[in-house]
Amino acid sequence: MPPFDVTDDVPEGHPFGPHNLPYGVFSLDASDAPSAGARTAGARTVGVRLGDHVLDAAAAAHALGSPYAALLAHPTLNPLLAAGRTAWSDLRRALTAWLTVPSHRETIAPHFHALSSVTLHLPFEVADYVDFYASENHARNVGSIFRPDAPDPLTPNWKHLPIGYHGRSGTVVVSGEDVVRPAGQRKAPADPEPVFGPSVRLDIEAEVGFVVGVPSERGRPVGLGDFRDHVFGVCLLNDWSARDLQAWEYVPLGPFLGKSFATSVSAWVTPLEALEEARVSPPERTHPLLPYLDDSAPDIDPGGYDLRISVAVNGHVVSEPPFATMYWTAAQQLAHMTVNGASLRTGDLYGSGTVSGAAPDQRGSLLELTWNGRDPLDLPTGRRTFLEDGDEVTLTAWAPGPSGTKVGLGEVRGRVVGGRA
Amino acid sequence: MPPFDVTDDVPEGHPFGPHNLPYGVFSLDASDAPSAGARTAGARTVGVRLGDHVLDAAAAAHALGSPYAALLAHPTLNPLLAAGRTAWSDLRRALTAWLTVPSHRETIAPHFHALSSVTLHLPFEVADYVDFYASENHARNVGSIFRPDAPDPLTPNWKHLPIGYHGRSGTVVVSGEDVVRPAGQRKAPADPEPVFGPSVRLDIEAEVGFVVGVPSERGRPVGLGDFRDHVFGVCLLNDWSARDLQAWEYVPLGPFLGKSFATSVSAWVTPLEALEEARVSPPERTHPLLPYLDDSAPDIDPGGYDLRISVAVNGHVVSEPPFATMYWTAAQQLAHMTVNGASLRTGDLYGSGTVSGAAPDQRGSLLELTWNGRDPLDLPTGRRTFLEDGDEVTLTAWAPGPSGTKVGLGEVRGRVVGGRA
Repeated sequence: MPPFDVTDDVPEGHPFGPHNLPYGVFSLDASDAPSAGARTAGARTVGVRLGDHVLDAAAAAHALGSPYAALLAHPTLNPLLAAGRTAWSDLRRALTAWLTVPSHRETIAPHFHALSSVTLHLPFEVADYVDFYASENHARNVGSIFRPDAPDPLTPNWKHLPIGYHGRSGTVVVSGEDVVRPAGQRKAPADPEPVFGPSVRLDIEAEVGFVVGVPSERGRPVGLGDFRDHVFGVCLLNDWSARDLQAWEYVPLGPFLGKSFATSVSAWVTPLEALEEARVSPPERTHPLLPYLDDSAPDIDPGGYDLRISVAVNGHVVSEPPFATMYWTAAQQLAHMTVNGASLRTGDLYGSGTVSGAAPDQRGSLLELTWNGRDPLDLPTGRRTFLEDGDEVTLTAWAPGPSGTKVGLGEVRGRVVGGRA
Repeated sequence: MPPFDVTDDVPEGHPFGPHNLPYGVFSLDASDAPSAGARTAGARTVGVRLGDHVLDAAAAAHALGSPYAALLAHPTLNPLLAAGRTAWSDLRRALTAWLTVPSHRETIAPHFHALSSVTLHLPFEVADYVDFYASENHARNVGSIFRPDAPDPLTPNWKHLPIGYHGRSGTVVVSGEDVVRPAGQRKAPADPEPVFGPSVRLDIEAEVGFVVGVPSERGRPVGLGDFRDHVFGVCLLNDWSARDLQAWEYVPLGPFLGKSFATSVSAWVTPLEALEEARVSPPERTHPLLPYLDDSAPDIDPGGYDLRISVAVNGHVVSEPPFATMYWTAAQQLAHMTVNGASLRTGDLYGSGTVSGAAPDQRGSLLELTWNGRDPLDLPTGRRTFLEDGDEVTLTAWAPGPSGTKVGLGEVRGRVVGGRA
């Protein structure tokens, strides 16, 4: 096989072209490891996606004598995440040069591997995982479904702060890992006592995850304007949810077992720098905001992103949630999360909350798409209210890139398997 | 100074006598490091508390040629936690022999340091932190205070499952660290809009923390009977709570900023094996339990512990919460937390929830002790409803040990400091 060539092997307009360059962690299978310059089979290291190939970034840096090898020769992205904004930018510029300067391209060519020949791993060690609830459409839909008699589907605090809660970081898994249907307690209003068994309302939540790189000190809030000094990039995230378990447990302390069995993230983390062209203003604020959340000042970056998500069940697209409609931005979420003095750690992950647009085919959960099971979806693979064993859910997304290109986000894929007997 | 001698230097009946042997992590200050056999100043390593001294456990193991040095020569307890129940028991037996056999005592004598001469650190790397709500007295008190018109102060699920939620593991700090008063949004019912500022209802929650050693696989619940195969030991825990922030934010997704600014744990982790004499049955169950939580079967260890907690504000004891009154046990909490297939990691920490007895002077929070500020406490340092800047809160506890001894738990101490301007 001839050496990999950027120009020849990455078609013009590929969503993972040289304008994207997301980071992940990969290993080689035993059958591929013995090739020239390759590493030990199974050893994890940082990779950069280009087209349908992965660049072994540490090996490339080493071959070029670049000092970035020290940040990249690790089984997780955490050292790179911790390195900070200047290093992130410098490395991105360096990667671009390696792909552009002919002599560099030649040097790094042996360090590309076909995507199909590598195993992708959880790209970073998750420190704390927080999940928000930032789509007004989603919050209104959920409120209408669960509290039909309430005067307003939004709780009184919703327009004043981005509501969030901590999730389980130990069960954040990478795209491709199966999700075992969770068992637990549920109690329908008509049941005299709770019953135990596998969830019968297993759902998804299509979200965008934000990955914190630079930590902060306890007692020192991170302001709205410091978002890009701390957050490295984004991933796609599926916040699997067992609606029946959640409904019975969540008053008064919030979701617990209804969410903690699995959260899937994409194998690729897209740096914020690749999303410059996708920056947009968030929806108009209908309520005045307290100063620490007020992003209307002219010197404040509004922090919205135009990401176009697609949700497929068994390969059939059921929804296309538009991230640009999110009421609360990731910058506001970061400011809120730390305003009480809570510190950040490298590897903190926070989810946007389910992304739902205004239109029925833009809703990011089956709860909303089927209106809590009332309006089943007719898919080529059968009628669905919630997920059945064997169903596979795939989230993909893209954002506008420079010169009319698309920036692809990594996909999140997960298949539901039945619980153990 | 003569070498440390167990018999001479640990008074009979000392709560940290040779029947206790809790583990922690310490370092030597620069002024103490140059003594014979000592380590580099500032380097963290595992210590075992005996009386008012700390044994440098790895150095002692090394001096004796014990293979346990490999588990102990680390800046955290995590490798020991991960080693499992057989290793935990074997090491405990070995430590007892080192303190008993005269030639061993002589060998390890240089590796004791006065408690006053060392710095204690967070004893383990916290993976996920979960907090429960397992005291019926506490839940009834809180329900009565916050929902005075509800027909029952307990929510309908309370007697069917141990209610819990995830907290922020990145802000778990060791005893002695200051707690910066958190700022945030609050909105009293009479306020037309939320206001921002330092919390005016800063509170404590006296709890017991359980430290997970042995991980479990995703998709495989941990049964009631497997509690001691996974949980290594206990610490004391103060779940600092900003009641005003919490009240405004917590519907519908639970506590977030009202809790996430700090959680303090003791520097010493007491192994479950030191608490054998303290095992008791939990209170009688008033509702039948689903099988995975039913601890009434004769072959199930009931999982209760008789721990006597003491809460002091500025040195004055304000409450003595009895842990034996907790409705839900740590074994039930572990079974519940994993029944949906959520996996465990080494270093997972879960709090019991506020410990409150039936008597007014057994309540584990100022919220309950002052009935939400209605009945202030008159302390020697002044009248208090919630905490003022400069207040220091100290939790201590002991449990019945063998032959009439007491097993001391490590204390949790924290001082409130004003927020930054």
